[in-house]
Amino acid sequence: MKALLAPSSIALIGASGDPSRLTARAQLYLRKHGYTGALYPVNPRAPEVLGERAYARVEDIPAEIDFAYILLNTEHVEGQIASVAAKGARVACILADGFAEAGAEGQARQERCVAAAKAAGLRLLGPNSMGIINIPARIAASVNAALEAETLPAGRLALVSQSGSMLGAIMSRGAARGLGFSHLIATGNEADLTAGEIAAMLVEDPGVDAVMLFLEAIRAPEHFARAAALAHKAGKPIIAYKLGRSSFGAELATSHTGALAGSDAAAEAFFRAHGILRATMLESFLELPALVLGRKPLAKPHRAVSVLTTTGGGGAMAVDAMGVAGIEARVPDDAASEKLHAANMHAHGRLLDMTLAGTKPDRVEAAITALAAAGDTDAVIPVIGSSAQFRPADAVAGIVRGRDAIQGAKPIAAFLVPQADASLALLAEAGIPAFRTPESLADAMRAWLDWRAPANPAVPAAPAVAMPDAPDEADAREIFAALGLATPYSRDLAAPHAYPVALKILSPDIAHKTELGGVRLNIPDAAALQDAAAAMQARVAKAAPHARLTGFLVQPMSKGLAEVILGFRRDPEVGPVVLLGAGGVLAELHRDVALRLAPLDEQGAREMIADVRALRVIEGWRGLPRGDVEALVKAIVAVSRLATLPGIAEAEINPLMIHESGVTVADAWVVRA
Amino acid sequence: MKALLAPSSIALIGASGDPSRLTARAQLYLRKHGYTGALYPVNPRAPEVLGERAYARVEDIPAEIDFAYILLNTEHVEGQIASVAAKGARVACILADGFAEAGAEGQARQERCVAAAKAAGLRLLGPNSMGIINIPARIAASVNAALEAETLPAGRLALVSQSGSMLGAIMSRGAARGLGFSHLIATGNEADLTAGEIAAMLVEDPGVDAVMLFLEAIRAPEHFARAAALAHKAGKPIIAYKLGRSSFGAELATSHTGALAGSDAAAEAFFRAHGILRATMLESFLELPALVLGRKPLAKPHRAVSVLTTTGGGGAMAVDAMGVAGIEARVPDDAASEKLHAANMHAHGRLLDMTLAGTKPDRVEAAITALAAAGDTDAVIPVIGSSAQFRPADAVAGIVRGRDAIQGAKPIAAFLVPQADASLALLAEAGIPAFRTPESLADAMRAWLDWRAPANPAVPAAPAVAMPDAPDEADAREIFAALGLATPYSRDLAAPHAYPVALKILSPDIAHKTELGGVRLNIPDAAALQDAAAAMQARVAKAAPHARLTGFLVQPMSKGLAEVILGFRRDPEVGPVVLLGAGGVLAELHRDVALRLAPLDEQGAREMIADVRALRVIEGWRGLPRGDVEALVKAIVAVSRLATLPGIAEAEINPLMIHESGVTVADAWVVRA
Repeated sequence: MKALLAPSSIALIGASGDPSRLTARAQLYLRKHGYTGALYPVNPRAPEVLGERAYARVEDIPAEIDFAYILLNTEHVEGQIASVAAKGARVACILADGFAEAGAEGQARQERCVAAAKAAGLRLLGPNSMGIINIPARIAASVNAALEAETLPAGRLALVSQSGSMLGAIMSRGAARGLGFSHLIATGNEADLTAGEIAAMLVEDPGVDAVMLFLEAIRAPEHFARAAALAHKAGKPIIAYKLGRSSFGAELATSHTGALAGSDAAAEAFFRAHGILRATMLESFLELPALVLGRKPLAKPHRAVSVLTTTGGGGAMAVDAMGVAGIEARVPDDAASEKLHAANMHAHGRLLDMTLAGTKPDRVEAAITALAAAGDTDAVIPVIGSSAQFRPADAVAGIVRGRDAIQGAKPIAAFLVPQADASLALLAEAGIPAFRTPESLADAMRAWLDWRAPANPAVPAAPAVAMPDAPDEADAREIFAALGLATPYSRDLAAPHAYPVALKILSPDIAHKTELGGVRLNIPDAAALQDAAAAMQARVAKAAPHARLTGFLVQPMSKGLAEVILGFRRDPEVGPVVLLGAGGVLAELHRDVALRLAPLDEQGAREMIADVRALRVIEGWRGLPRGDVEALVKAIVAVSRLATLPGIAEAEINPLMIHESGVTVADAWVVRA
Repeated sequence: MKALLAPSSIALIGASGDPSRLTARAQLYLRKHGYTGALYPVNPRAPEVLGERAYARVEDIPAEIDFAYILLNTEHVEGQIASVAAKGARVACILADGFAEAGAEGQARQERCVAAAKAAGLRLLGPNSMGIINIPARIAASVNAALEAETLPAGRLALVSQSGSMLGAIMSRGAARGLGFSHLIATGNEADLTAGEIAAMLVEDPGVDAVMLFLEAIRAPEHFARAAALAHKAGKPIIAYKLGRSSFGAELATSHTGALAGSDAAAEAFFRAHGILRATMLESFLELPALVLGRKPLAKPHRAVSVLTTTGGGGAMAVDAMGVAGIEARVPDDAASEKLHAANMHAHGRLLDMTLAGTKPDRVEAAITALAAAGDTDAVIPVIGSSAQFRPADAVAGIVRGRDAIQGAKPIAAFLVPQADASLALLAEAGIPAFRTPESLADAMRAWLDWRAPANPAVPAAPAVAMPDAPDEADAREIFAALGLATPYSRDLAAPHAYPVALKILSPDIAHKTELGGVRLNIPDAAALQDAAAAMQARVAKAAPHARLTGFLVQPMSKGLAEVILGFRRDPEVGPVVLLGAGGVLAELHRDVALRLAPLDEQGAREMIADVRALRVIEGWRGLPRGDVEALVKAIVAVSRLATLPGIAEAEINPLMIHESGVTVADAWVVRA
């Protein structure tokens, strides 16, 4: 951990003496920003590099090293691993690209490096890593051009980025907004050390208050889960900006990092389950830390705020943008109104408009104190107009005093309507969250109100089930039954049935039975059943001569109040997930689907049901008959338990019918891993 | 027009000599910013105001005036109208609030002012107006505190804002981004002059290149329509930011301006139909003008862009954000690839990643020129990393040269990834659109690609229809038939029918026939029809004893491939609109609805159908049978023609059934205005 976060001796392998070259930068920047540890440039062709004693080979370095930054071309990296480890280094950082992201040969090269490092007890950062920066410790072991800056903004935010160039972009934007950083670390391909693992180290660093993640992909989700649990315990928020919200972005992230792209819905579920805040705007990513620093997720957020404003139009913008994000600006309740009246202020509707009072600090303080008393809002939002531009001290004073007066009971988050850099800087200095646009205010508030403590559903034991190599529908039903979701069916044509029944052919090889004539509905009696089975056998054998036919399945006809699709799969990034969607032909068109990490508990299942709009129809909407929501909850939990069966890659019940009492599995399949 | 946009003599009625007062500001700011025309402070209690000769009454002013700014309290405004007009003023601007936005009394007061002004040939700006600013002409007749600034950013953008405080906010933010303004005008309550009317004047001003609108409500939509038509002809874009995207925002806009709130979907349809660009982010509102200045709407946008980047992560962010907005970053086509190869550059996938080439201006120029050759993209997006921060001249030079080389064939729109104020300023100076965040880039590109030339559907003649005072369903059907949408039905129980039929009671007083037993389906023959009618009459008469029963309606039973809701209403802001939604119980839950201004043409109707996701099911989706889309198109056009019948306030066909051939009206109603 120290070798990565605060190395006190560094080797630069392949350091160039030509200051215009990329490979000269790490040394230049380390010196520029005052590195005080030991530094060993390695260059076989020069006894001196940039005025410093250089070594021909790693082996020649006369002391132990903590951290080696390998600046060599792709093909020369592998040969350095063993010698670096032999010098006692705990971490080697690799600058070159051309590894896993560059096809099979690169992938093999990367795997060899990892194996060599592992064998030697060395951890790897990268390949394709721009290095590490520890600002308070004056360690700028990076080639990022942002280090051209004369001074670096020191502070207590840590940034881990899979994209090296974003280190500089976020540092510069943060500096402009008064954000200071402790560490900035570029993880690149993450052949070994992942962003999640490093996030966990940073959470344990006493110099860090919050961890920001710029992610292209989620690798090793268990590392993030561990970091998130530690972070929650330590009261240090983790805030992510992740690419891949669109299919084009997901495709790029894949080709850029060599990772497999999962779905964004799965990433969203992952962040939510682990209590990681997700910003969807670059600006709110930078503005969020001030909002959540030192805070815990709210147990029961109202998703509502109190807004005061010194400008009608600006206040309305804030209210409108938050409304689009599902956050209500609320009329002051009795408690708040009483305090407002005592201060001779009167809200009209959703805005406390103080345009006439201007931004006299005592009035703003009084307004904030009064509105903070509201029992039904989560935060107080002061919106400040022209005074933020022309009288920054006045504009900010009332907000600071209001914040101090309420002693952190609620966040005070300011939106400044004009261009008001001085006021933004004063607010940042005072530790008050401040926003440049109504849209980033709304995104940050949404992220904060979506924030939950990490979910810790009890991981159930894996049920004992037979797992045939080639499961047919009856096998799938047995697996679901073992998980706690059984629907009567029979494989025996001759047994007594509750007619009318449905008849289906069983085959592990036929995915779409209906198309091949393998389904017959509404069979009225035993004689018709025998006839139907004989005809079906002949028909399917002809239509699919190579399919193994493993029998018949008979089940009672059943009609539900609603139908859902209940699915399970393993997302390439975040692992097992469960999906719940409205059934029927329109479901796909409406993308009316909820997705969560599996396994989950009943509370999680209830939240999924609430997320599927079409399921309002079984909750008494428009006087329609109510469906058995509790049975659906249990069904979702049961299906999510497939996560405990590594032999299963994918599964689906489509449809699951919801009745006034109970649910039935109408069709089901599982796919072996 | 001159009196409003560039008055050369101004009276300030109620000017205060106390510089700390709001009513002193207009005079202070006019002088501060170098007003050279005649200025007449009016103050009954001081012969001199702020060192200038003042007049006790308007009547005492020794010359004619163009523009009077009435700074008096609410109750004193009305008394000034006649005297101001008598002095030859063409425009009076009213600062006070307390008019239409303040209840019935204020509304009456406002109406009296308007009547007095009209009688005297005077136009009113406001009430609740912060005044007018003409920067090039040095006329700052406004009380907006933004005029505290030492210099004002002169330029060729005009801003009309219903919120006075936003004048300053937008001017200051614009100035920080290199935007210069010609006029900034606050319209307040718009008792007389509306934002649309002023926009039309500004479009005709040779000093104006584009008009920006900050709107809380759309009043007098015909004014906007006229402005938009003139703007399109003049090649001057109109760009709007409008509140009311959320219900809370809409509610505020109403209470703030005294306007009735329409639906945001109607506002969106209005902007689109009239070729007005709509930004949904404050930042993109300011960044859009540079993108669209001097451009016309694309006839057939690809909704696709070419992206080059000097930073992988930053480029991926831009691609991802645009993807979320439905804009594809496209792999270079053959034409672009050939030029790239000739310049020894090679795109991998959707990004031309020039990280290694850095931002050498000649390389960036070559890349832009090559990518601009793509036949399947609408714009070229250069994404610039750290060089934008540390070498602004270099970062910008290649973009400028690229823009010049392609001679405006496509917009070049830059996204700067780090904090890079100097580069943003250079780009603004060069007239190149530049964006601070990937999200505002995406929003601006979306607004631009959504931009269409104003639609000019031929307004059909009003059909000759009987319009009973209390229409029942049969009357509604006759109206739809007159518009060109007839479905067979009969009011005669004894006539020959194609059984099975449906029977319904007719009554202008019963909105929900089914609940009262007024609908019977699947009646098999004539005898059953007679019985059903007798029973229905008795049942309904008992259930709704005061309802007028006007007979029966018999129609053949009919089943469609799909059902839609087709509606018509008059939006309080934008006027007649037509709505198309998926039918059935889930439609409302999914909000799967398209809305357009009425009347519309077949092209407009086709676009509506494309907007309703559920209608993919009648277009051959998943092998389902195709419905008669052309008949649906004609039905939408027919219903939209209700706009020509002012006697109709609202109407709905629910459901309209779509068959393989034709459509049928299953139920219909109209409401008199």
